[in-house]
Amino acid sequence: MFLIVGELINSTRKSVGRAIADRDEEHIRGLARRQQEAGADVIDLNAGESVDRELEDLLWLIGVVEDELGPEVRLGIDTSDPAVMERAIVACSGAPLMNSISNEPAKRSLIDVAAECGCEVIGLAMGEAGMPMTADDRVKETAALIAKCEEAGIPRERLYVDLICMSIASSAVQGREVLGAIRRVVEELSVKPLVAVSNISFGLPDRRLLNRTYLPMLVSAGLAGAILDPTDVGIAEAICAARALLGRDEYCMDYIKHYRANAAA
Amino acid sequence: MFLIVGELINSTRKSVGRAIADRDEEHIRGLARRQQEAGADVIDLNAGESVDRELEDLLWLIGVVEDELGPEVRLGIDTSDPAVMERAIVACSGAPLMNSISNEPAKRSLIDVAAECGCEVIGLAMGEAGMPMTADDRVKETAALIAKCEEAGIPRERLYVDLICMSIASSAVQGREVLGAIRRVVEELSVKPLVAVSNISFGLPDRRLLNRTYLPMLVSAGLAGAILDPTDVGIAEAICAARALLGRDEYCMDYIKHYRANAAA
Repeated sequence: MFLIVGELINSTRKSVGRAIADRDEEHIRGLARRQQEAGADVIDLNAGESVDRELEDLLWLIGVVEDELGPEVRLGIDTSDPAVMERAIVACSGAPLMNSISNEPAKRSLIDVAAECGCEVIGLAMGEAGMPMTADDRVKETAALIAKCEEAGIPRERLYVDLICMSIASSAVQGREVLGAIRRVVEELSVKPLVAVSNISFGLPDRRLLNRTYLPMLVSAGLAGAILDPTDVGIAEAICAARALLGRDEYCMDYIKHYRANAAA
Repeated sequence: MFLIVGELINSTRKSVGRAIADRDEEHIRGLARRQQEAGADVIDLNAGESVDRELEDLLWLIGVVEDELGPEVRLGIDTSDPAVMERAIVACSGAPLMNSISNEPAKRSLIDVAAECGCEVIGLAMGEAGMPMTADDRVKETAALIAKCEEAGIPRERLYVDLICMSIASSAVQGREVLGAIRRVVEELSVKPLVAVSNISFGLPDRRLLNRTYLPMLVSAGLAGAILDPTDVGIAEAICAARALLGRDEYCMDYIKHYRANAAA
């Protein structure tokens, strides 16, 4: 089971920021439905751009998306404010995904919120040393985060570790270091690695080509989940093909079904 | 350096079989040039369909392709007949690639031809037990082949081992087993793994999607070369993006150049 977290309802995207400010329900409903239809397991909700009314905006988003997709929809609550997280999490009807906690000293209280709510949680492989650069940094940060989580009462089964994907435009080795980190945290720490795929291509042309080419590498290295745009056709095709190629789609039935649906469309 | 062996001049393809029979130079010249322009390092030549005049046909292909691309072009001589191999190899002006030898008892004399000619060689990971099914089978066959080659005087630096890619339609685990074998022969045997990529999708719809999705998995696992259709745009894009993603394209210069060339086209 590969967890797909749909990233489109994020207030840092201009059209979404505007839709939230204008209380444009239709825009949000459309984004939620299209992501679910494209295979998103979790609909991520981020209202972080409106600092002074982040909670109010998040609660509105939760209401709109649950009304559109039903109360059992899995929502990703994406905020760095512990007070907002706590209130938003309990407002969800289904089992939400907390996005995210980390081992940064300033964000320690989010770990307690996560322990309290009992839900699944994304943890960033990032602590006092700031952004990890190498595979080794990422493995160390992951181990430290797991230790902190288990101490707080969050078993690693409830944790997805975001291994901090950074653009190959800033440093050519980043793609390789993340792949190495994925293999190692799976083998050495038995934890579920996750990344935000599109970060890999920031600042480069034809980002979709880089994203859809990186995805099969990530999945074959052992990635357990990803934050991405599931409505990107190249990404959706790559996920479907990757499942068949890695033997997770018996008799390639889903792959053939996907092909027939597209051929008919 | 990732070795791209262009597979299009193969007599089992109907149009090519006909072009060889009709001595249609223009058809062969076009296939050779398009593959080279698309990035092929080696132009594979196969005339195996015409058993009774295979050597004559191969010599004609060698002449035509060398005339089109210059005598320094690297040709892949693709035959299972030791006598044909020996004659065709010496007819090449540049340094050819022998495709292929194996550890099958019936083909043992090809190893001596390879040792004699001193050229690079593709060896199939296949011996007395027939087609390998698991990663383990492939690693064992590779080790046996290396031993046989070194005994005959072919150092492993001159060897690409074809790990026998089979369709996921016949067995869902084949994609995964080949990936596992690639990682292991690189780590344990320090030899260069190669596959014929498109075999993975035999019998399935939208083969190009499966091929271009499998390629990034193969390259990130450590593949050193591939037999493929370099003129397939999806494959060419995937190779270019994969190099950038794996840190083999400093400052993503080649990737950006590729993008600009396509944007201008």
